[in-house]
Amino acid sequence: MNMGEASRYLTNFVDELAQSGMEHVVISPGSRSTPLALTFTEHPTIQEWVHFDERSSAFFALGMAKSKQKPVALVCTSGTAAANYYPAIVEAYYSRVPLIVLTADRPHELRDNGAPQAIDQIKMYGDYVKYFHEMAIPEADPSLITYARRQAARAYSQAEATQPGAVQLNFPFRDPLIPDFTLENIWGNATGKYVTGITGHEQLHPSQTETLIGQLKDLSKGVIVCGELPGDTDVEAIHQLAEHWNVPIFADVLSHVRHGNNGNAKVISSYDAILKDEEVALSLEPDFILRFGAMPVSKPYLKWIQAVPLKHHIVVDQASGYREPSSLETTMVYSEPNELVQQMLKSSVQLTGDPAWLDTWAKMDEIAMKEICGAVEGEQLTEGKVAYELTEAANTGDVIFVGNSMPIRDMDTFSLAKKEKIQIHGNRGANGIDGLISTATGFAATGNSVTLFLGDLSFLHDYTALFIARKYELNLRVVVVNNNGGGIFSFLPQNTEADHFETLFGTPFNPPIKTLAEAVGYRYHQPKTSEEFQQLVRQAISGMEIIEVVTDRDENKQHHRALWQRITESIQKEG
Amino acid sequence: MNMGEASRYLTNFVDELAQSGMEHVVISPGSRSTPLALTFTEHPTIQEWVHFDERSSAFFALGMAKSKQKPVALVCTSGTAAANYYPAIVEAYYSRVPLIVLTADRPHELRDNGAPQAIDQIKMYGDYVKYFHEMAIPEADPSLITYARRQAARAYSQAEATQPGAVQLNFPFRDPLIPDFTLENIWGNATGKYVTGITGHEQLHPSQTETLIGQLKDLSKGVIVCGELPGDTDVEAIHQLAEHWNVPIFADVLSHVRHGNNGNAKVISSYDAILKDEEVALSLEPDFILRFGAMPVSKPYLKWIQAVPLKHHIVVDQASGYREPSSLETTMVYSEPNELVQQMLKSSVQLTGDPAWLDTWAKMDEIAMKEICGAVEGEQLTEGKVAYELTEAANTGDVIFVGNSMPIRDMDTFSLAKKEKIQIHGNRGANGIDGLISTATGFAATGNSVTLFLGDLSFLHDYTALFIARKYELNLRVVVVNNNGGGIFSFLPQNTEADHFETLFGTPFNPPIKTLAEAVGYRYHQPKTSEEFQQLVRQAISGMEIIEVVTDRDENKQHHRALWQRITESIQKEG
Repeated sequence: MNMGEASRYLTNFVDELAQSGMEHVVISPGSRSTPLALTFTEHPTIQEWVHFDERSSAFFALGMAKSKQKPVALVCTSGTAAANYYPAIVEAYYSRVPLIVLTADRPHELRDNGAPQAIDQIKMYGDYVKYFHEMAIPEADPSLITYARRQAARAYSQAEATQPGAVQLNFPFRDPLIPDFTLENIWGNATGKYVTGITGHEQLHPSQTETLIGQLKDLSKGVIVCGELPGDTDVEAIHQLAEHWNVPIFADVLSHVRHGNNGNAKVISSYDAILKDEEVALSLEPDFILRFGAMPVSKPYLKWIQAVPLKHHIVVDQASGYREPSSLETTMVYSEPNELVQQMLKSSVQLTGDPAWLDTWAKMDEIAMKEICGAVEGEQLTEGKVAYELTEAANTGDVIFVGNSMPIRDMDTFSLAKKEKIQIHGNRGANGIDGLISTATGFAATGNSVTLFLGDLSFLHDYTALFIARKYELNLRVVVVNNNGGGIFSFLPQNTEADHFETLFGTPFNPPIKTLAEAVGYRYHQPKTSEEFQQLVRQAISGMEIIEVVTDRDENKQHHRALWQRITESIQKEG
Repeated sequence: MNMGEASRYLTNFVDELAQSGMEHVVISPGSRSTPLALTFTEHPTIQEWVHFDERSSAFFALGMAKSKQKPVALVCTSGTAAANYYPAIVEAYYSRVPLIVLTADRPHELRDNGAPQAIDQIKMYGDYVKYFHEMAIPEADPSLITYARRQAARAYSQAEATQPGAVQLNFPFRDPLIPDFTLENIWGNATGKYVTGITGHEQLHPSQTETLIGQLKDLSKGVIVCGELPGDTDVEAIHQLAEHWNVPIFADVLSHVRHGNNGNAKVISSYDAILKDEEVALSLEPDFILRFGAMPVSKPYLKWIQAVPLKHHIVVDQASGYREPSSLETTMVYSEPNELVQQMLKSSVQLTGDPAWLDTWAKMDEIAMKEICGAVEGEQLTEGKVAYELTEAANTGDVIFVGNSMPIRDMDTFSLAKKEKIQIHGNRGANGIDGLISTATGFAATGNSVTLFLGDLSFLHDYTALFIARKYELNLRVVVVNNNGGGIFSFLPQNTEADHFETLFGTPFNPPIKTLAEAVGYRYHQPKTSEEFQQLVRQAISGMEIIEVVTDRDENKQHHRALWQRITESIQKEG
């Protein structure tokens, strides 16, 4: 027995997702989810990916959605399967990535009564989804077919609108669970979308923009700051604005402004290193900051803006966004950034940046970059060298996916501006060390050349995600910095807790990276010198490969501290 | 700088947990959680366990809490770390296991503003926790010290009362994060608990019990059914009740009634096998069922009670429990089971069970057991043989932790009654295939001799939990039945979907069990015959060991089907 005509409810639902633009679905095995799993798999244009771990599947979908900048679907069975999606859904919420979470459920009469593998899935992700809807039991009635199409289109457009995020549709299914794909015209009205959503964006009225710029017009020491930007940001226009106003751009490593700028002297990449010294930082007094995108990775930047007198602090975000942890007096501008930049470029008010201010930054940036280049010379393969060399080796279009904790900080410091437009990504919504291999594999699954750069604890946390790359024979290069534990804690006050430091913070798990790599069929390398590492990462990525770089936590701390000191000294001497 | 006098807030909190009975805490590394992590570690009586993966840590705590039948604490840092606890919290809710989830958080002024690794943790587990409280920022004021003690005692008593489950306390922490343990009398009033909770249980008035039994007094064909029972259930009293009433006991494999009963002929272990045949099942018409504990694993049992005329269906549960998926007319008795059984034993109403009814069951049970024993003879190492032999090899007190999907079903069939009181456990709240290695390792961590029996997909899902056993040098035997995928689907209607069966349901991931085992330092065996397997599992567990049993999904289905048929035929012939 199969679902008969009721199958059309699901085929129309899935087809409407496809018509809306859905290309990928990530399915985890299960019984109750059979109707959705089979319908997606039968659909002629949607590609299915199957992975056993729902936590990993959700991060994998997140990676694909980030890469494609459009919604990816997830399908799981009832029970704790759905709870495993939670970490990636939280990350999607904060990093604004569209996901369509389709949870299969028992029908109402089999819920909340001790039936096996049935849990309460209604609103189980709380406020972390943008939209929740409990679907009707599949039926063939025309009103239900159109309802299924409406909900598919609506879920898709909700997921991607304004501040993208996850949506959850919960599907109750009764037996029988097998759809009938032999029905005529099974994909329904497949000539186009049934519901079309056209979503506008917040834009300031030009007069609002004039007023805003008017407040800045007598200020000569401004900074444009770019954190992680939405994928469709017109980076060229931001460069033009910096030219137009004669101000520096602080380019966070995830901003896509740092790389590919053809040597724009206004881009300052090493502000993190420059601002590490308090005395240097306090000597630099900006009049205003105009920030696009998320708060930058750099902690010295945060401390700096909190310490100096600032006349205007302006943060541009989408509607209801609030990414402003400095607690400064702030003007929150709710506008789509591209339109705002165009209005600013067209404004009748012309800001005149102080050439000396710009020059100071350019000079310090040059000094810092020289010191950073100096620090990565020689044969010793340090953590900083890894970040530096990965950037050097990457070409336009290549993706470097960066883990949290130390790797992203090292990348912010050591990834120097270059003309090739490389893509650097990370999971900076909630900054977790979970799901990083899965997310990077999601980027690889959409056809990118991907290098993942992460620490040994993050590697262990998501190790089994490597089975996805193996199963689908994806190309993925994983660079694991193995300092046997939580390297970042060596830089924090916890480091003084000699008694419990290794137990609670150092946490050495002695990960057998080589064996773990080979168990899943990855090529393994452990370069000992800078040159060996350089040779490895300058080769094109082909197949699955793990490069382990063994470092020492204490030594790493000394390297970093020594570099900060040299930069400060050089700035004080030459700057 | 350290927290100074405010440290007392946490030391008193942790000490009150200890005074309440807390013995174990599972900590995942992080910075924001430093005050809790250090205070637990400093506390003289609480033992800390540190693991890198919060999902796994929560299941590990769940295993310890199940084993000790008392609350275990969890500590994690802010961010997606806390979201990783969700699957185990859901399982704790449905399987009624007490956990105290302590999530560290940024202070209020650093929330919801784009600060790194800060997510909204308020009520983030929804209705899956019994109690949520947002704690105050630590302060040394006496009123806050007593508040900290009160909340500790309350969380502990809430977690373990009536229907145990998880509670969440969310702790906002400001810098500095290091407590000062040099303060005098740091653990406060450590001579005893500050708040003592004494929780009663629902009990029927004896007259209610009389009325209940009165309804059964003319009925001669009753069955006492025992699903998974609360750990403190007086199993002997249930045996006495069956004697007293002269009725059979259906003993689910997780009931702790099947094993250790010294040959009580009233215990029917093979009702699942007996009831598999519809004709046989329909010929057996019970008058009443009195069930203690959760719904049994057996699906044929569910179908049977739904198909036969039943005069009374009585389900005993704690207050507000509702584990009754049959949708039969049911009397839900809300009472602590032990007290109810005592009242029934003392009742003036004497039920007189039909000896023929009891005899029929005993005879069928004998036949089925004979066939099951026959099926596991010979040298071929089948999945059923694994379940059978693990039971045979276990001694009183030994723990067999059984995975979901096929292993628990095989265990229900092939684990025959024996006089040694072995403990069989599983995660049957939500029946997930996640967290099984972690949960079993939790049992091992509390000093049990543990054999974990699970499938290859479950093994992969939770593989990195093996690092816990390695780190703490626990004794753990892992028996992986590797049929390269989801064996259970071969028994479901999905099996007819030839086109997509392997892609969506079979899902072979070719797990390299040997390499994965050896990577984490486990001894590895792959027995080819029953005898080799028997020799391995009859040795005492010492150290870490993985036994891989390779089977074939189709062949396994044939084995099972043939056995059901033989049992049915023998019952029809001899019964």
